[in-house]
Amino acid sequence: MTGKWLPPEQQLKELQRGTAEIVSEEELLQKLQLSVREKRPLRVKYGADPTAPDIHLGHTVPIRKLKQFQDLGHEVIFIIGDFTGRIGDPSGRSETRRQLTETEVQENARTYQEQIFKILDPARTRLVFNSSWLAPLNFVDVIHLSAKYTVARMLEREDFKTRLKDGLPISIHELLYPLAQGYDSVAVEADVELGGTDQKFNFLVARDLQREYGQQPQVALMMPLLVGTDGVQKMSKSLNNYIGIDEAPGEIYGKVMSISDEMMLPYFELTTDLAVEEITALRAGLRDGTAHPRDVKMRLARELVALYHGWPAAKKAEQEFIAVFRQGGLPEEIPQVEISAQRLRAVSLLVQTGLVSSNSEAKRMIKQGAVRVGEERISDPDAELELEDGLVIRVGKRRIVRIALRR
Amino acid sequence: MTGKWLPPEQQLKELQRGTAEIVSEEELLQKLQLSVREKRPLRVKYGADPTAPDIHLGHTVPIRKLKQFQDLGHEVIFIIGDFTGRIGDPSGRSETRRQLTETEVQENARTYQEQIFKILDPARTRLVFNSSWLAPLNFVDVIHLSAKYTVARMLEREDFKTRLKDGLPISIHELLYPLAQGYDSVAVEADVELGGTDQKFNFLVARDLQREYGQQPQVALMMPLLVGTDGVQKMSKSLNNYIGIDEAPGEIYGKVMSISDEMMLPYFELTTDLAVEEITALRAGLRDGTAHPRDVKMRLARELVALYHGWPAAKKAEQEFIAVFRQGGLPEEIPQVEISAQRLRAVSLLVQTGLVSSNSEAKRMIKQGAVRVGEERISDPDAELELEDGLVIRVGKRRIVRIALRR
Repeated sequence: MTGKWLPPEQQLKELQRGTAEIVSEEELLQKLQLSVREKRPLRVKYGADPTAPDIHLGHTVPIRKLKQFQDLGHEVIFIIGDFTGRIGDPSGRSETRRQLTETEVQENARTYQEQIFKILDPARTRLVFNSSWLAPLNFVDVIHLSAKYTVARMLEREDFKTRLKDGLPISIHELLYPLAQGYDSVAVEADVELGGTDQKFNFLVARDLQREYGQQPQVALMMPLLVGTDGVQKMSKSLNNYIGIDEAPGEIYGKVMSISDEMMLPYFELTTDLAVEEITALRAGLRDGTAHPRDVKMRLARELVALYHGWPAAKKAEQEFIAVFRQGGLPEEIPQVEISAQRLRAVSLLVQTGLVSSNSEAKRMIKQGAVRVGEERISDPDAELELEDGLVIRVGKRRIVRIALRR
Repeated sequence: MTGKWLPPEQQLKELQRGTAEIVSEEELLQKLQLSVREKRPLRVKYGADPTAPDIHLGHTVPIRKLKQFQDLGHEVIFIIGDFTGRIGDPSGRSETRRQLTETEVQENARTYQEQIFKILDPARTRLVFNSSWLAPLNFVDVIHLSAKYTVARMLEREDFKTRLKDGLPISIHELLYPLAQGYDSVAVEADVELGGTDQKFNFLVARDLQREYGQQPQVALMMPLLVGTDGVQKMSKSLNNYIGIDEAPGEIYGKVMSISDEMMLPYFELTTDLAVEEITALRAGLRDGTAHPRDVKMRLARELVALYHGWPAAKKAEQEFIAVFRQGGLPEEIPQVEISAQRLRAVSLLVQTGLVSSNSEAKRMIKQGAVRVGEERISDPDAELELEDGLVIRVGKRRIVRIALRR
């Protein structure tokens, strides 16, 4: 942005692309018009959970939309939601949501920063902690805040409704969290809030609170949720179906190649820079058979590695992938494992080399036919194996070691 | 109390008298036993609303039970609930619950103190303000507090249930008030909480919170609600069906005489010092006709005036009442009103003397036959009346003035 603003209508058109829902488009257009008229960037809010600082492709869907706002001249207010992180789970029911220390919060924030600036423009990003305005609130402030919302409306939130119906407990403090998150919008005077479709309810609460505090309500812009590598659930770290943007090039490339063919096009649309026309062409090619799904998927893998590691890394990852998995060759750097025994039972070999984490996993992999010793696939977990220096052991496609016999 | 404690079982028996419910009697007995063993007075909590500092007979029902605890050697913790008073109604819906100033709270507290010490022993009373521990709570503290209670349990409270069913809004802050009141019990480490039956839900919330904070739960002791002078609704200032303990002797006497016959016995039981045996005798007398209801009611009026103004005042009030209302005589001191006109329309006369507050009330009273001018009952609101010095005008039994003609 060099002091020039695109016409509001044109900005709106670019911002609409790929969104699941905007509440409302008219309001967004009005805000864009006012922004151009007053030469004032819009404040675009994004709230991040500080408990899991690994940004994966799922996060990049809204974050890339933030970048688009920045490219149009607007300001991103990136809120680290450290307030709730510092509380943990006060009901003590969840073991995973433990209380974070001051140091952990700072450390997580630093990690976040490193990662988001692979996508966002630091010059147009304000990074803030919501504890700075939530922690000083006292009981009277909280009462005033919570007087602005009714129990009935809060219980309309999908997960609350389900839990009430199923007789599962909802603690009263849980009703306060959406209010706290909404108060963030009041504190930063957000013009727009951006996130996944699962955040819609909270975004609308924020709109109501802003009205109550005499502000213009923010526009709520929801992006579609990215399905994880399992093809079923929303991408998330806890489900281990994610592709982290900080992972090694080969890792990203391999994980992308493992997704199902139907998921390729949504991934292109939501996570890459490919132009709409190119994606349309790819869709057509897949439909009429002129494009091979494997080649299209390799293109996707290449694009994504390039986005976070650059083109040279993308090409290298692709070459290695081709060498290992399509020409039956080996990756350039196979990790070596020292073994002192010259004969070993198959199960013990897999465990000692670290290719599996337990005897039972070893047995299962062998019975599934996933284990190769040299070029030979083995099927008997109790087979005694003759080991020699340089022997390559594989479990599935991506776990691989080379034996170094210790003499 | 002079260092001697009654046996716990005997204390329990005295304390049970007149109660509506105790949760639970076993726990109360255990606490009394522990108290005697450790020579430690029980801490008996009572929470008072600082918005209406006029103590009426309805309040005295639990306060007299507090006195009984004091007579048995225990300590009363009288909590002025100034925290919510200082907030007012944050939703802005209620006009009556406006925010009190610091000065008003202090003033109300002083008035309270003057009145409660007509019943309670100051040496065994600790007067505290709940803002001293509630105001310093921050948002994190409030979240921890509200994590200890579920929405579903809170919504079991009768008035919440009704409002939800009727589709009337409940603001989220309203769920915080019972928690704040419960936290009072935690703050003062209450052994017993005392109040009306309408407080049961809140008292049980307090028990739960004390458990959560690692304390022994308080015993909840509920007294029956006193019906007001209208014979229908709970006595309360806002319904104007109350008898204030600070009212003039004649006022108290007259108001007691206006209650219905059926209410006499509950009033004896809940608001006077009469022994159980005496009340039983009165009940029997009324049933077999040996006692005249009017005489029994005069006894009640006498007892109540004596409690708050002493016996001489009680006798004087009774004599005046007899003179005015039974022998057709006049009270000793009839307020004089100066009037300059010598002739007046009946309606104007009533308004100018302040006996009624509007023309329409004047007309209604005249049509009901409630107005006497001298010895004559009048029935025409438009009648022109000849006024003379010393003429007595009455509306109903208790509104009375003497005309002083201004020359």
